[in-house]
Amino acid sequence: MIDHCSSWVERAGWVDNFDAAVEGRLPQDRRGREFSDSDVYKLMEAMAWEIGRTGDEHLEERFRSYTARIAPVQEPDGYLNTMFGRPGQAPRYSDLQWGHELYCYGHLIQAAVARARTTGVDDDFVRIARRAADHVCEAFGPEGNQGVCGHPEIEVALVELYRLTGEQRYLDQARLFVERRGHGVLGDIEFGAQYYQDHEPVREQAVFDGHAVRALYLAAGAADLAIEDGDDELLEAVTRQTLTTLARRTYLTGGMGAHHEGESFGQDYELPPDRAYSETCAGVASVMLNHRLLLATGDPRHADAVERTLYNVVATSPAEDGKAFYYTNTLHQRNPGQPADPEHASPRAASSLRAPWFHVSCCPTNVSRTIASLGAYVASVDDGGVQLHQYAGATVRAHLADGDVVLRMVTDYPADGTVRVEVQEAPGAPWTLSLRVPAWAEGATLAVGDEPGRSVEPGYAQVERAFEPGDVVVLTLPVTARWTWPDPRVDAVRGQVAVERGPVVLCVESVDLGDDVGTVRVHTDEAPQEEGGRVLVRTSRVALADTPWPYGTEPDAGAVQGVSDRDTLVPLVPYHRWANRGPSTMRVWMPTAG
Amino acid sequence: MIDHCSSWVERAGWVDNFDAAVEGRLPQDRRGREFSDSDVYKLMEAMAWEIGRTGDEHLEERFRSYTARIAPVQEPDGYLNTMFGRPGQAPRYSDLQWGHELYCYGHLIQAAVARARTTGVDDDFVRIARRAADHVCEAFGPEGNQGVCGHPEIEVALVELYRLTGEQRYLDQARLFVERRGHGVLGDIEFGAQYYQDHEPVREQAVFDGHAVRALYLAAGAADLAIEDGDDELLEAVTRQTLTTLARRTYLTGGMGAHHEGESFGQDYELPPDRAYSETCAGVASVMLNHRLLLATGDPRHADAVERTLYNVVATSPAEDGKAFYYTNTLHQRNPGQPADPEHASPRAASSLRAPWFHVSCCPTNVSRTIASLGAYVASVDDGGVQLHQYAGATVRAHLADGDVVLRMVTDYPADGTVRVEVQEAPGAPWTLSLRVPAWAEGATLAVGDEPGRSVEPGYAQVERAFEPGDVVVLTLPVTARWTWPDPRVDAVRGQVAVERGPVVLCVESVDLGDDVGTVRVHTDEAPQEEGGRVLVRTSRVALADTPWPYGTEPDAGAVQGVSDRDTLVPLVPYHRWANRGPSTMRVWMPTAG
Repeated sequence: MIDHCSSWVERAGWVDNFDAAVEGRLPQDRRGREFSDSDVYKLMEAMAWEIGRTGDEHLEERFRSYTARIAPVQEPDGYLNTMFGRPGQAPRYSDLQWGHELYCYGHLIQAAVARARTTGVDDDFVRIARRAADHVCEAFGPEGNQGVCGHPEIEVALVELYRLTGEQRYLDQARLFVERRGHGVLGDIEFGAQYYQDHEPVREQAVFDGHAVRALYLAAGAADLAIEDGDDELLEAVTRQTLTTLARRTYLTGGMGAHHEGESFGQDYELPPDRAYSETCAGVASVMLNHRLLLATGDPRHADAVERTLYNVVATSPAEDGKAFYYTNTLHQRNPGQPADPEHASPRAASSLRAPWFHVSCCPTNVSRTIASLGAYVASVDDGGVQLHQYAGATVRAHLADGDVVLRMVTDYPADGTVRVEVQEAPGAPWTLSLRVPAWAEGATLAVGDEPGRSVEPGYAQVERAFEPGDVVVLTLPVTARWTWPDPRVDAVRGQVAVERGPVVLCVESVDLGDDVGTVRVHTDEAPQEEGGRVLVRTSRVALADTPWPYGTEPDAGAVQGVSDRDTLVPLVPYHRWANRGPSTMRVWMPTAG
Repeated sequence: MIDHCSSWVERAGWVDNFDAAVEGRLPQDRRGREFSDSDVYKLMEAMAWEIGRTGDEHLEERFRSYTARIAPVQEPDGYLNTMFGRPGQAPRYSDLQWGHELYCYGHLIQAAVARARTTGVDDDFVRIARRAADHVCEAFGPEGNQGVCGHPEIEVALVELYRLTGEQRYLDQARLFVERRGHGVLGDIEFGAQYYQDHEPVREQAVFDGHAVRALYLAAGAADLAIEDGDDELLEAVTRQTLTTLARRTYLTGGMGAHHEGESFGQDYELPPDRAYSETCAGVASVMLNHRLLLATGDPRHADAVERTLYNVVATSPAEDGKAFYYTNTLHQRNPGQPADPEHASPRAASSLRAPWFHVSCCPTNVSRTIASLGAYVASVDDGGVQLHQYAGATVRAHLADGDVVLRMVTDYPADGTVRVEVQEAPGAPWTLSLRVPAWAEGATLAVGDEPGRSVEPGYAQVERAFEPGDVVVLTLPVTARWTWPDPRVDAVRGQVAVERGPVVLCVESVDLGDDVGTVRVHTDEAPQEEGGRVLVRTSRVALADTPWPYGTEPDAGAVQGVSDRDTLVPLVPYHRWANRGPSTMRVWMPTAG
């Protein structure tokens, strides 16, 4: 995926923009949208995490080469952007609504934080980012420009840079940006000021609104700020907004953003499956936000949200070969789409099949940096012990007050519900191992060594003891397929049902049905079956007539010509794997029979 | 409504743009979007029809005054536009995708046709339009610019001007525009070329796609062209597209356009009530198109569509006082909106309450010209007699081969289903009076004089005889309220039902319920009741819990705390009257009980 994105940022000319700046070829040679610099930085963040994980030398070389191409573009005062400020370009910060300059710094800084965290060094790239951050503090500080960026992102980056460096001015600047926002500083636009969260101060909002990625990046920054400031009021506000959004404005997949128009959240319970925008980047942003709130509050609902979103949004975007991506993630495909051209960037975000690249190509690099940093979401540590939040084959190393812990996690989760945790190193003193039991996992059990397993409730199951190397803890999660019904306020899926298996949302695809998915009716009086790794549901099929008007005085408006007996067992596939076998129609929510 | 629009085109500076052009104050003093000239023309079309109907002297004076302000802006070669071509402005026709120059001519010409048809004279205004049309034929003819306008409209106008003048070149130019389109002449945009119907030639399309107003204006022009050319293939294509759109892409209200994004048609059966765009102007365009197809084919489905759209889209847009308008017409309001400021133009098309004017204010003038020309939709005449298509208090005058017919129509339709047609003048010879029986009117009866009424089927009921002055024909349509169910392919309203009464779609409003409309469940085993002019339905109410996640393993996801006994009779109101009593929540489609 990283190689694919590298080839496209080169091919699209977005790295060349930096060379063009040095060679005086701007603005005439500039390519890409105003925020294209940010995709180079996001790709570098992915590379930094991956270099840290694997030590890949080719990636390291490429990272240094990008750094060398970017460095000379930075101006003496730290300003760095290929779109503004040169003769023939608009002046610096002349378009805070749409210019994305601070947004680009945000991604530059996040990439630098990843670089420093994984290498421990203050290399050229990290120094570029610090100079940019210093420039931002100068230009937008208490005495400077009193604006904010139309696209939040700088906030979360500045707090992270503060954590890395201990420089108070970065935290102070993040606070200024968060507090300035919401007072109409950006001016009105057709979408309304809520598009960029400038309609209401962050701490006064009840729920996320407007452009989903903007809202969630801002909230992640506000959460970070609240944590570092010990600002309980702000943390509570962001937590409340997040929980209300999960309760009323989130798709079953964890996807956020119900409107194509303005790429925005819809109103409460307005969650049309066939018009789900559910932008991949909003999924990434929700993972970022919920991870922060998990660490701040310990509330397992945030870890559940991270898991749901990783499996059903972030994992849905890339094709199996990592060379094409969904920008939006519909839950209901009505027409089989046309495959995207693998050689051309798609001008359309909401294309019906995955595309190799987009004119606005935020999602591929965002997926890359998220997958490269997945390890960060697995476990956390505090004075009392280690908490396991996500389950995957992994080795977890932690430093407790009394000594080091090394755990080996062995599992085929989510295909299988057994998570085996082997203690490889442990201090002699007692500590607590916590394992998340997802909200859906009614009937989970936990066994320690040869002791009989005990039932554990959703939340965190805990084992406190003086573990010894060789100890084994086994969590068993009931990942059998289950019916899932919607709240009746989600009008768009009334009379329909979905199937989930563990954290994975399933769907029916026309390629498995041999017919359009509009003809399926499922029998919910019979549980979904599992057979050879596949989930099957009992269905009938309706025969539908061509009618001149889709409304009538009879139920079904006279369109149903007949319903077959309950006969066909239809296989479902994980939603994140859909459309990997070519064009098809697909639905997550299936009408019930009878 | 005309006075209201006049005051706003003045106040918004859109008439002043013409003065500014003459006084050399352009581009610096120009106000409004690139198509603002067209709203002055659409208002003048409304004025022309209204002057023709009433002879209003103040309107006549205003019409002449506008003409005098527009006339000197026209350049010697006929070009006329306040947005292009002057020093400091983009050159003429430099932006066919978005510039709307030909679109503006289209509305200028339609206004001139209305003027000429109602006054019978070739006044200054008509001459301006003819010079503009001549210029278009010169500039875009076989030897000229081979482009088309990003927004269709010129096509229908040119055919109408051909009908008025008999000038073949206008018809030829309309044909060029219709045939050029659909070959990618406008270039690609993010919405895709179907946005402006440039993805496929008109005669190859299966159904309307892309921007709804653009598609429907184009189809109206293509229908007019097909009729004048005797081009059966083209007429069949447009008819097929229209009937397929009615069958699969039309709201119960007759509204068209399911997407806010791109103001476009959705896919087949993708008709979310809460995200209905259903632009007022698309309703106007559908009336134009279906009226043309009715005259061309005699198919009563087109007259039904005109009626449905007039009562439930065109009539919904304006507030009762005619001083505020909906641009979009949702079928489900989830949150009570904020009243629009009566003193300021709204920047947002999809505002939740009616606004006095918009930054893009196509709808108010479009409603005005439609209402001012309503008489045109009532009746038609052919060699065999007179056809009554729409029912309203009216006097119909027609010239048959054997002499004149004068009919007086007396009715309170649609409040009451009785339509009384009195013959006031008739030739001695036999002729046929046809009366449309709408598709919903099962059980209609027709009585002639003292004869016993006979049952008549949906379609056209006919009476052929040598009518004499004083003869009376009475059509009785069963306008009692009825349940209407959706086709199951309209997934978004599964398990829900609407109520219609005659041609009028009803809705439930929170102001009548004393509670949010999300709590209503209707009992369809009991027919809607009528009482004192009101329609009432039997309901239960559900109590809904605050839940942390809107999906669960139990039906209703555990959200329903209780359902009341069947008790409350809730009044419904005509959908076109909703939100006239202040902010409320509203729904046309109501979940069924049990």
